[in-house]
Amino acid sequence: MSMSFKPLDPNYQEKVRSSFSRQKFMDFIGAELVEIKPGYCEIHLPYKKELSQQHGFFHAGIIGTVADNSGGYASFSLMPKDSSILTVEYKLNLIAPGDGELLIARGQVIKSGRTLTICRTEVFVVKNGVEKLCATSLTTLMALVGKSDKSE
Amino acid sequence: MSMSFKPLDPNYQEKVRSSFSRQKFMDFIGAELVEIKPGYCEIHLPYKKELSQQHGFFHAGIIGTVADNSGGYASFSLMPKDSSILTVEYKLNLIAPGDGELLIARGQVIKSGRTLTICRTEVFVVKNGVEKLCATSLTTLMALVGKSDKSE
Amino acid sequence: MSMSFKPLDPNYQEKVRSSFSRQKFMDFIGAELVEIKPGYCEIHLPYKKELSQQHGFFHAGIIGTVADNSGGYASFSLMPKDSSILTVEYKLNLIAPGDGELLIARGQVIKSGRTLTICRTEVFVVKNGVEKLCATSLTTLMALVGKSDKSE
Amino acid sequence: MSMSFKPLDPNYQEKVRSSFSRQKFMDFIGAELVEIKPGYCEIHLPYKKELSQQHGFFHAGIIGTVADNSGGYASFSLMPKDSSILTVEYKLNLIAPGDGELLIARGQVIKSGRTLTICRTEVFVVKNGVEKLCATSLTTLMALVGKSDKSE
Repeated sequence: MSMSFKPLDPNYQEKVRSSFSRQKFMDFIGAELVEIKPGYCEIHLPYKKELSQQHGFFHAGIIGTVADNSGGYASFSLMPKDSSILTVEYKLNLIAPGDGELLIARGQVIKSGRTLTICRTEVFVVKNGVEKLCATSLTTLMALVGKSDKSE
Repeated sequence: MSMSFKPLDPNYQEKVRSSFSRQKFMDFIGAELVEIKPGYCEIHLPYKKELSQQHGFFHAGIIGTVADNSGGYASFSLMPKDSSILTVEYKLNLIAPGDGELLIARGQVIKSGRTLTICRTEVFVVKNGVEKLCATSLTTLMALVGKSDKSE
Repeated sequence: MSMSFKPLDPNYQEKVRSSFSRQKFMDFIGAELVEIKPGYCEIHLPYKKELSQQHGFFHAGIIGTVADNSGGYASFSLMPKDSSILTVEYKLNLIAPGDGELLIARGQVIKSGRTLTICRTEVFVVKNGVEKLCATSLTTLMALVGKSDKSE
Repeated sequence: MSMSFKPLDPNYQEKVRSSFSRQKFMDFIGAELVEIKPGYCEIHLPYKKELSQQHGFFHAGIIGTVADNSGGYASFSLMPKDSSILTVEYKLNLIAPGDGELLIARGQVIKSGRTLTICRTEVFVVKNGVEKLCATSLTTLMALVGKSDKSE
């Protein structure tokens, strides 16, 4: 996927980073916004026991969370300045157990429309430094133009 | 949906509760397993700021988490004693913002097969005591027979 | 699901039936629009060999087709007069083989929004007169207001 | 996606082509199996009016059909000789109208497991010789080992 998109807001970097920093859940779990490009977003999440399921691996809900968020911010990077973003739906296939020291979620816009954006996300789990595909998702997002991302 | 299922493990209540209690992520976010019946599971999650997205509402990842988990434990309730459970995939439609003081996730098995189980989940958000449909999901789960839920 | 919706177009019956009759694919496979109510649509499709997969059962693509269409027309029944409808995405779980003499697809709107509508569909296969759940889907549809369903 | 898979059945070409030819629905709509490689399948479907929705474009059900089938046969190419294949579920995002003279569906296995296989499919619509992404899907398939693809 080597698509090229042009963001409608030249300050998309700042806009995305500001929104991410206002998501208290990201801070709570320890997720970090590592890279943001037009139509692309990468999020890292180091392992901690508090994020685990019954076998001690990353919980599927956490894998879904970083998938959803990387797709969401990949999409938000392309939207107009005075807009807010909404996840309409996502579908996630879990491919390998979340067994490792780090999750890396990479969201990539496939189609950027005026109202709807479609994203593909891949989540990798890193164990002893080796990346392995852990999950993949397909997500539909909606731009709410004229509704600020900051207010309620 | 008024389906009747017979659990393969008579101690399904204990089995499910024990597994839930070993998911550290459930404790971290404050989720509670409120009801477990054959093929049905209900999870409650009170609001706290740490679970919020940029508008202060429940984060979509959290909504997906309780949806996935209620479907997972609804399915696990029907599986044999010496088995483990795996989420194969889930698809979640977000229907209303997670704006409220409590999330209630209700997972219901639709089809219970030897290998695969299909679940439908509804997540409600409660605001000032009034329940509102917030999200719905369709989930595929797999039984790993002969693999304990307790070990790795 | 006993939801009550009010159609924006009082002539929704005629609008839906007219659109269905212009879908040449419905005639080609032999599908019939059996019932249309606000937010609800039922489609029947008798078996013929031309619709089969390698085992002689209804092809999964056919099951997806009637699921998609019953959800689509359930949604379209609620939309304004001068609008067109678009399937944004659907997710279908196949639950039992399409082994029987008739498919019945029942689409029900769960959430009717200004732009997006969410539907749940159940597809039953009838064998020797007995209905069996064959598939279930969750669908997102979009209203294109001001774009006629009749023109291109 | 440049993955390399080894088919369990050296005669996978013949096995897939034989199964495809027994799907009467493929013949009915005029679909052609153009290429089959380990973990990959490409299907072409020329336009005819009988496949259209109300605007004269390829019907969404037809787009879903070729998506499902290309993913299915991509997966089936890797499975053991004496096995049958089942679509567990698929999720399809429709990205552009099916407006053109030909559909091309390309299915690619992402993960090949003993029981389950995960596929990604892209469907392109060709208009005046130009390919355009029309839909993308994520599919879960199951191998039924010991159950022939030919018998019921």
